[in-house]
Amino acid sequence: MMSKRGLLIVISGPSGVGKGTVRAEFMKNEDLNIAYSISMTSRQKRPGEQEGVDYFYVTREEFEKAIEEGKLLEWTEFVGNYYGTPLEYVNKLRDEGKNVVLEIEVEGAMNVKNKCPDAIMIFITPPSMEELERRIRGRRTEAEEIVQQRLAKAEREMTYVGQYKYVICNEDVALAAELITVIIRRNMEK
Amino acid sequence: MMSKRGLLIVISGPSGVGKGTVRAEFMKNEDLNIAYSISMTSRQKRPGEQEGVDYFYVTREEFEKAIEEGKLLEWTEFVGNYYGTPLEYVNKLRDEGKNVVLEIEVEGAMNVKNKCPDAIMIFITPPSMEELERRIRGRRTEAEEIVQQRLAKAEREMTYVGQYKYVICNEDVALAAELITVIIRRNMEK
Repeated sequence: MMSKRGLLIVISGPSGVGKGTVRAEFMKNEDLNIAYSISMTSRQKRPGEQEGVDYFYVTREEFEKAIEEGKLLEWTEFVGNYYGTPLEYVNKLRDEGKNVVLEIEVEGAMNVKNKCPDAIMIFITPPSMEELERRIRGRRTEAEEIVQQRLAKAEREMTYVGQYKYVICNEDVALAAELITVIIRRNMEK
Repeated sequence: MMSKRGLLIVISGPSGVGKGTVRAEFMKNEDLNIAYSISMTSRQKRPGEQEGVDYFYVTREEFEKAIEEGKLLEWTEFVGNYYGTPLEYVNKLRDEGKNVVLEIEVEGAMNVKNKCPDAIMIFITPPSMEELERRIRGRRTEAEEIVQQRLAKAEREMTYVGQYKYVICNEDVALAAELITVIIRRNMEK
């Protein structure tokens, strides 16, 4: 039997908002049949990491070739390394009936929205910008300049909120995860 | 026994988006213990309408006095008549343990947010601006100029989306109502 094609769920929002925490929470529901998309990267494999588990590892040249050939659903460059989502891999998982979750930055999410108009776009917001600042500062000891850059980036990212079908405040992780679960379940029934 | 103070739930979004339809759907859940807030108005009572059921009817002078005395949580003027939410009435319902739902325009919602920081702010969006236009045009036969004014207003209203904790696309009324139900239930448990 062919299984029904899986959903594509995009979880985005400003960095520091807690996307990963919310994702880990709703992924506990095994009936959601979720596959978390593994990214492709040009950065070096670190000790303990595994090909096809942590990342798909390629060279810079291979990554750039993949960009040129349109093989990436979205990609970004961060501290000299490329990171992206292989389109074919996502399609394969969806064809197998898996609901694929992408947890990505706002810019990449807009690319996914353009390439996959059926993607379920979910934006996670902080309870307030003050709370986001507290979370960013709490995460690690960074130079004030870096903190300010991250906050300015977060404010720019917040302006994309209107591009999303669902916006969920991460004030209460359990509630945020429950709302996403409801959205996925309902779309699975369609 | 004193009952726990009720929640204040604000349902807002551009006019034509279907706020009333979504509200009617989630209000079917009687366990949510919802009281829909009755507005005060300076407009004439129409045949069949009842004081304290459809509206609280007052004169323009009484309404203006209520504004001056800060007795309104929010208010607006529409085609020469005032409409607003009496603060004392909302507080009374909440003190009785009722969860009060306000279905109001974006501008009024911002006033509520300022006056009641504990209000649960929910914004309903259309699947797209094209779909909103279709809904506005489908509602009644209006002059093109009026339709354009309503659309321009809706676009201005959409810019307030970042002010809300929860943004829900009214693409699927049942899903929108279910998400609001989850938000209310979770907040009732706190």
